[in-house]
Amino acid sequence: MAEKRIYVDYNATTPLKEGVKAAMIGALDIFGNASSLHGSGRLARARIEEARAAVGLLLGSPAKTIVFSSGGSESNNALFAAMRSLASGPGGPRKEGRREFVTTSIEHPCVLNSAGYAEKLGFDVRIIPVDEYGKVKMDALKAALSEKTLFVSVMMANNEIGTIQDIKEIARLAKEAGAFTHTDAVQAVGKIPVNAVDLGVDYLTVSAHKMYGPKGVGALYIKEGAPFSPFIHGGHQENGLRAGTYNNTGILGLGEAAALAARDLCEYQQKTSALKKRLKDGLSASIPSIKINGHPVDTLPNTLNVSFPGAEGEAILIHMDMAGIEASTGSACASGSLEPSHVLLATGVGPEVAHGSIRFSLGWETGEEDVEYILKTLPPIIEKLRAMSTIEQPKLS
Amino acid sequence: MAEKRIYVDYNATTPLKEGVKAAMIGALDIFGNASSLHGSGRLARARIEEARAAVGLLLGSPAKTIVFSSGGSESNNALFAAMRSLASGPGGPRKEGRREFVTTSIEHPCVLNSAGYAEKLGFDVRIIPVDEYGKVKMDALKAALSEKTLFVSVMMANNEIGTIQDIKEIARLAKEAGAFTHTDAVQAVGKIPVNAVDLGVDYLTVSAHKMYGPKGVGALYIKEGAPFSPFIHGGHQENGLRAGTYNNTGILGLGEAAALAARDLCEYQQKTSALKKRLKDGLSASIPSIKINGHPVDTLPNTLNVSFPGAEGEAILIHMDMAGIEASTGSACASGSLEPSHVLLATGVGPEVAHGSIRFSLGWETGEEDVEYILKTLPPIIEKLRAMSTIEQPKLS
Repeated sequence: MAEKRIYVDYNATTPLKEGVKAAMIGALDIFGNASSLHGSGRLARARIEEARAAVGLLLGSPAKTIVFSSGGSESNNALFAAMRSLASGPGGPRKEGRREFVTTSIEHPCVLNSAGYAEKLGFDVRIIPVDEYGKVKMDALKAALSEKTLFVSVMMANNEIGTIQDIKEIARLAKEAGAFTHTDAVQAVGKIPVNAVDLGVDYLTVSAHKMYGPKGVGALYIKEGAPFSPFIHGGHQENGLRAGTYNNTGILGLGEAAALAARDLCEYQQKTSALKKRLKDGLSASIPSIKINGHPVDTLPNTLNVSFPGAEGEAILIHMDMAGIEASTGSACASGSLEPSHVLLATGVGPEVAHGSIRFSLGWETGEEDVEYILKTLPPIIEKLRAMSTIEQPKLS
Repeated sequence: MAEKRIYVDYNATTPLKEGVKAAMIGALDIFGNASSLHGSGRLARARIEEARAAVGLLLGSPAKTIVFSSGGSESNNALFAAMRSLASGPGGPRKEGRREFVTTSIEHPCVLNSAGYAEKLGFDVRIIPVDEYGKVKMDALKAALSEKTLFVSVMMANNEIGTIQDIKEIARLAKEAGAFTHTDAVQAVGKIPVNAVDLGVDYLTVSAHKMYGPKGVGALYIKEGAPFSPFIHGGHQENGLRAGTYNNTGILGLGEAAALAARDLCEYQQKTSALKKRLKDGLSASIPSIKINGHPVDTLPNTLNVSFPGAEGEAILIHMDMAGIEASTGSACASGSLEPSHVLLATGVGPEVAHGSIRFSLGWETGEEDVEYILKTLPPIIEKLRAMSTIEQPKLS
């Protein structure tokens, strides 16, 4: 393996910021059970409530709207479980016989599989298509909404292609139809402004490790008054909404990551968007017949998804890895799968082109020299793989 | 608050061992997404698999039987969800129409509430009573087992009174009836020998923070071949059994805690049981009319639950806290609840006596001088509270 390591897979996960690491090391000694009534317990609890306030501030919402979880996947699963409960009891009032769940074709596996599980249990699930840029087709969404719709779940920014949805408008339409709105904002929070109250959503999912915080911790924003029932039953932690001993170290790390994300948002956007532009322009200039996926404007500042028709994605990854570049073909949660990206297929990219696509996701540690190294290293890899390819190079339509 | 802090609430949670802390600090820099195919991902994954092997070793089972989770509450909830799935689909083959869940009256809230939730969903739940020492009434268990029983869930050691159950015999009886066995071994692992294979159980729950590891991480042992379906749907982490990005820091902390627990088990038992004996004898000698709860022999070495009739538990706690002693009235997960302990009630202790009960749970940092301090400090507190009490001192039957 090459000595030089250039990590451009920040949408898979991020390293800890120094401030987060320091907060977590400090938290390792705050060991009290935050549910205990004695001094050690109260100390831990006070620090956890500070972290809750920091996450709330980042989302423009009061601390009491934040429920901690073990991460984005749990938050999304918990939301779907609560909605199942709401639709059919027990645990929540049945909401006017509404049993239809609406989501999109480009969601993260934890949402799509939660939707699939709900379908197996007898709930009706409607999957809204997206256009060639990965934008939700609003006409299709409007047509799907009815008095049967219980809730709409649309991710705020896509993990693979970076496309940002108009969640505010989606929430408005859902509300008009009497439905709740959930957004998986795991890839948006810390990268673009996210104000849960202004968006008008009822539920919003946050993950710490996508914004330079620890793995194994996340949150769910629950609008004041929105119904919810626990996914993990047991003790009355998190105001009865999520049982399990408070994860002091993880939660304090999330709190610090949230505080730093709020402070550094503008700088982050300027930095990553400039690097992304250089990478996009450089690749377009040096490699023929490539396709940039995702929306040209409504896109995450750090995410660039590129198809290299005629080269195979896994082979590109392996060659880049040997040259010290760490990227991915799409979601880490789908790594090792031989299926082409469901997100690219949903945007109308053919399976062969989808198979030859790479996601570059940049971050705080990415430097100009890293982008230059990629621009120097990748063209000969693609050329070599295209030359080796036994299949005819697919045409970009 | 007093300067001196004596923590005797180790069953609520434990501080990190120095070795665990060092492992976690080292792990803070292992940031790769363990599902990623590149170098950073593979490094993280390799370390996680080492931790899995360490947990397996502690339980006498192969690494592949260990599924990581966000803690004991999640593991127990996941098991109940998998059993619901198995009983009624989807996700598992229906097991011969078996829909009955059997558990006991002294389980942790996360098991009792999971059982209660299953009951609301239409499953049949049978709660087995215990005797005055907190031992499961085996005749009642035998009578409850039938061709309708899907599984039996009995905790290995009770968190409040320390009573240890004969899980091996319970698993044998369950198997004879064609049912699966689950044991919540959260309070047993690291305190007494726990060999999952030898016990013959199908499922066994582990928590890191009860054995000097981090909060927010745990595991579920799943016997080879035992059916399971995911609780958190999404990516194919944990061999498809639990979605969500691997919690590198937490899992590596759990792995180290498991390795140290295996190494130090004998010393732990000798140390804590000697201190517990001194505390028990000292309290019995210096405070009249007390009752030691739990089994006299089959009990955790570190756990002493004592009733002080005529004094109120919360008041005792507050006075002890002011004197620098941190104990509890029972489960931290039930703290703040005004209900008397369901465990003590189940052993036949009356509500008034149950209200006046304190759990002392000792640990690695507990010293002889701490026990002597408690023995010096507690008698005048009890005497004062009994004198203030307006209610007649309840008689011990």
